[in-house]
Amino acid sequence: MNRWRATLYRHLEPRAKEGGGLSRVNRLIASVIVVAALFAILETEEALRVQGGTLFIVAEVIFVVIFSIEYLARLYAAGEDVRYRGVIGRIRYLFSFWAIIDLLAILPFFLTAGAHNAFLLRLFRLLRLLRLSKLGRFSKAWDLVAESIANRKYELALSMGLAALLLLFSSSFLYVLEAEHQPEAFGSIPRALWWSIATLTTVGYGDVVPITVLGKIFAGFTALAGIGMIAMPTGILAAAFSDAMRKHKTQSASPKQPDPTTANRSG
Amino acid sequence: MNRWRATLYRHLEPRAKEGGGLSRVNRLIASVIVVAALFAILETEEALRVQGGTLFIVAEVIFVVIFSIEYLARLYAAGEDVRYRGVIGRIRYLFSFWAIIDLLAILPFFLTAGAHNAFLLRLFRLLRLLRLSKLGRFSKAWDLVAESIANRKYELALSMGLAALLLLFSSSFLYVLEAEHQPEAFGSIPRALWWSIATLTTVGYGDVVPITVLGKIFAGFTALAGIGMIAMPTGILAAAFSDAMRKHKTQSASPKQPDPTTANRSG
Amino acid sequence: MNRWRATLYRHLEPRAKEGGGLSRVNRLIASVIVVAALFAILETEEALRVQGGTLFIVAEVIFVVIFSIEYLARLYAAGEDVRYRGVIGRIRYLFSFWAIIDLLAILPFFLTAGAHNAFLLRLFRLLRLLRLSKLGRFSKAWDLVAESIANRKYELALSMGLAALLLLFSSSFLYVLEAEHQPEAFGSIPRALWWSIATLTTVGYGDVVPITVLGKIFAGFTALAGIGMIAMPTGILAAAFSDAMRKHKTQSASPKQPDPTTANRSG
Amino acid sequence: MNRWRATLYRHLEPRAKEGGGLSRVNRLIASVIVVAALFAILETEEALRVQGGTLFIVAEVIFVVIFSIEYLARLYAAGEDVRYRGVIGRIRYLFSFWAIIDLLAILPFFLTAGAHNAFLLRLFRLLRLLRLSKLGRFSKAWDLVAESIANRKYELALSMGLAALLLLFSSSFLYVLEAEHQPEAFGSIPRALWWSIATLTTVGYGDVVPITVLGKIFAGFTALAGIGMIAMPTGILAAAFSDAMRKHKTQSASPKQPDPTTANRSG
Repeated sequence: MNRWRATLYRHLEPRAKEGGGLSRVNRLIASVIVVAALFAILETEEALRVQGGTLFIVAEVIFVVIFSIEYLARLYAAGEDVRYRGVIGRIRYLFSFWAIIDLLAILPFFLTAGAHNAFLLRLFRLLRLLRLSKLGRFSKAWDLVAESIANRKYELALSMGLAALLLLFSSSFLYVLEAEHQPEAFGSIPRALWWSIATLTTVGYGDVVPITVLGKIFAGFTALAGIGMIAMPTGILAAAFSDAMRKHKTQSASPKQPDPTTANRSG
Repeated sequence: MNRWRATLYRHLEPRAKEGGGLSRVNRLIASVIVVAALFAILETEEALRVQGGTLFIVAEVIFVVIFSIEYLARLYAAGEDVRYRGVIGRIRYLFSFWAIIDLLAILPFFLTAGAHNAFLLRLFRLLRLLRLSKLGRFSKAWDLVAESIANRKYELALSMGLAALLLLFSSSFLYVLEAEHQPEAFGSIPRALWWSIATLTTVGYGDVVPITVLGKIFAGFTALAGIGMIAMPTGILAAAFSDAMRKHKTQSASPKQPDPTTANRSG
Repeated sequence: MNRWRATLYRHLEPRAKEGGGLSRVNRLIASVIVVAALFAILETEEALRVQGGTLFIVAEVIFVVIFSIEYLARLYAAGEDVRYRGVIGRIRYLFSFWAIIDLLAILPFFLTAGAHNAFLLRLFRLLRLLRLSKLGRFSKAWDLVAESIANRKYELALSMGLAALLLLFSSSFLYVLEAEHQPEAFGSIPRALWWSIATLTTVGYGDVVPITVLGKIFAGFTALAGIGMIAMPTGILAAAFSDAMRKHKTQSASPKQPDPTTANRSG
Repeated sequence: MNRWRATLYRHLEPRAKEGGGLSRVNRLIASVIVVAALFAILETEEALRVQGGTLFIVAEVIFVVIFSIEYLARLYAAGEDVRYRGVIGRIRYLFSFWAIIDLLAILPFFLTAGAHNAFLLRLFRLLRLLRLSKLGRFSKAWDLVAESIANRKYELALSMGLAALLLLFSSSFLYVLEAEHQPEAFGSIPRALWWSIATLTTVGYGDVVPITVLGKIFAGFTALAGIGMIAMPTGILAAAFSDAMRKHKTQSASPKQPDPTTANRSG
């Protein structure tokens, strides 16, 4: 009995796998998650829902069955972990982060069945996409990017603050200059923010554009300032990645100098 | 009496706080500034002004009272500083940079009350946003970014000059090619600049677009040149941040080599 | 006889040329390929096809004759290579990668002649552009860029994954918020993706734009997130190129330290 | 007499000034050039030309007089240079690069007076802007940026080639997919290029947008590829500037190691 559970645990728990990578069972589960998300996306399209109606229902049932079996199997295998041993341990497992995520991946099925309101239905369909967060269990990859960003959180926060001020002042100025001529688009600062964001991020939809001469002059300066708003975070991230890479190389290329300074720096 | 003033000074003057950070009183003031700015932004929206009219007036009175108390408290506490001691010192304080900023944060209240012209009213509302500059007293953070940019002011000025020339020549060429067909949008070089800025910054509103074949060919080259206009400042800032970070790390990681060269470089 | 073949081989085979660069014959062929592609592009324009009809046909015949002669000459000269000696060797050559590419460059001529369907005709015209792939034989230049990118394929894949999630979630949210008001543009997640891509890449056509207040607020955050989506790959590539350049310089500037560490690193 | 000429030469010839910078006379000439360009830009605007008609004519006469005096003064002072001594030397000077530029700055005045055709008139007005090239004599600043770019011309050419292929293939595919539905915008590859450039540079005017499902899918991938098209040159330039800065610092910070390796590298 216990040997069965140990085997199951080795196959299901990513950390239990030697040599990194995913076990065959987990790779299968990951594929099912991605396919389920794809089905959830396509099902929102009316045309496809009409044509392949039964297919979508059958697929959803299969996904829910698979995720339910996975949920129960993980609950059973959790006993291998010292923290989750016994009945009280299992209850503790039920309230662990990943167990709740796994439960949330099964629930939308029952919610969608009962929804009749169009908006709620769309919202419940969206919940299915949250199944993608189940993939988080398998991934240790985000750490590197997350660390690079965390190392520069100070500078990135600064450039965000600068961006916020730019957004605020450009929308305030255009509110003052254009409110009279385009009350719908520039009648208040929150309204002018829509134009301001589209311009400073260089998206530039063009649905709202200043029409007075002064407004255009100021909008031109805003557009030019937008370059800086893109250049600053890019520059900071470039420096962060370059730095992370150099640190990584120094660690792997020169292990023969175990002096205290290196030890400190790599910590 | 003097002990009271000293305590007040320690709580109000950011530089008097040990260990960096902000005192509880200053953190409260900073929050009030941000909330007041938020109210100023939301008040410009007609719909909200109609619904929550009294709320906005009450809030504004509260903000002005708080800022007035702060103003008087700072004026009193300034006596702890050798420069602002006595009556003449206090008068000198009234004309110091931050005291004027603090006064400007109180004034808009009285100005808005008297304004009847719609444009002036919008302008006075904008003045309330300038209260955000009061936050500048608490922040030593901009220095790092400002220094990074100042270190490369030469290259950044060059890339700005190049950008100005690009803007000028692209708008001149489109003026020559499109003026006959779209006199409203390309009838003069200043008019063509609006298109030119939208294209070279890659904003691309699409409200003005060349329609002749030659105009489109030239506009295509302008759009391609726009990539360079974004790439250059980004590249320069990336190098600047990378450099600043390396210098910073060298200073903190290797303090054991106090040779004159290092001392010079870090200066 | 064999001396003729050897001379032909030296002129046709890029690897047989000493000192790098292209032989005069290959430079001529490369020019013909570029000119042929230019003609293929211009021929798609109705106005030019009507005016210069005969010119396009004559030019196409000349290109096909040149490429046919090149094809036969390469087939003959292939005998210099040990792998392609004799009749069986030549048959093996016919199925080699570059021989198939060369054949594909001749075929569209005969296909276009027989096509009457407008869509097929456009498709066959497109095949002529594939002649540009013949240039691949001459170029060893892509390797450097390809290597720089390959060195960071891990980080680039991560930023692509992050981009995919951003696209998915922004289009899902706008589907929930805007589907009722703009069913044509936001009626399903795949439909909302069109808006999502245009916004996150900062292209911003403006043909589809959210109209509800909540939709605009969320779209604003999406546009701001788009800056990160551009900044991350740019930062990664900047670090990659900077790194490749430093490695390259270390190799060429300090060949006097042949210690095992350096040898390993440069490998 | 010769002492007069020597003084004039010292004031007019930028290279003759000790300690770098510009002499007071040259600074005045540079200001006049900038003001003249500004007048040329503003004069293209009908509204301003009507209001300030006489002002523009008077200003233009003053500029031409100043530039003529400058031209003659430089011709006279050129005698201080060994190459331009005597009558034959002066004739040689007349055909030197900067002398021709100076002459071209005077000519447009006489050309504009005689033009009656609207297009030619606009073109002659544009020639006045070329007076800005007179500033080139004073500037040694572009060298640094030019060198940084020249150092990476190989990689930049590669990324341009990649961009050209991207443009070509995206416009070809949209030509195949959309030509039937939008013959005006996608009826040929050159026409589709207009859309292609607007999308890949992330300008996104939105005047031309694919309407078929397949066209939108392909356009989405094109927009995503556009990120790479911006990221690559940015990354390359970031590395170039970072590198130039490091080399510059190594040269100025450590002049005490005159070993042959450093000498080579800095060459």
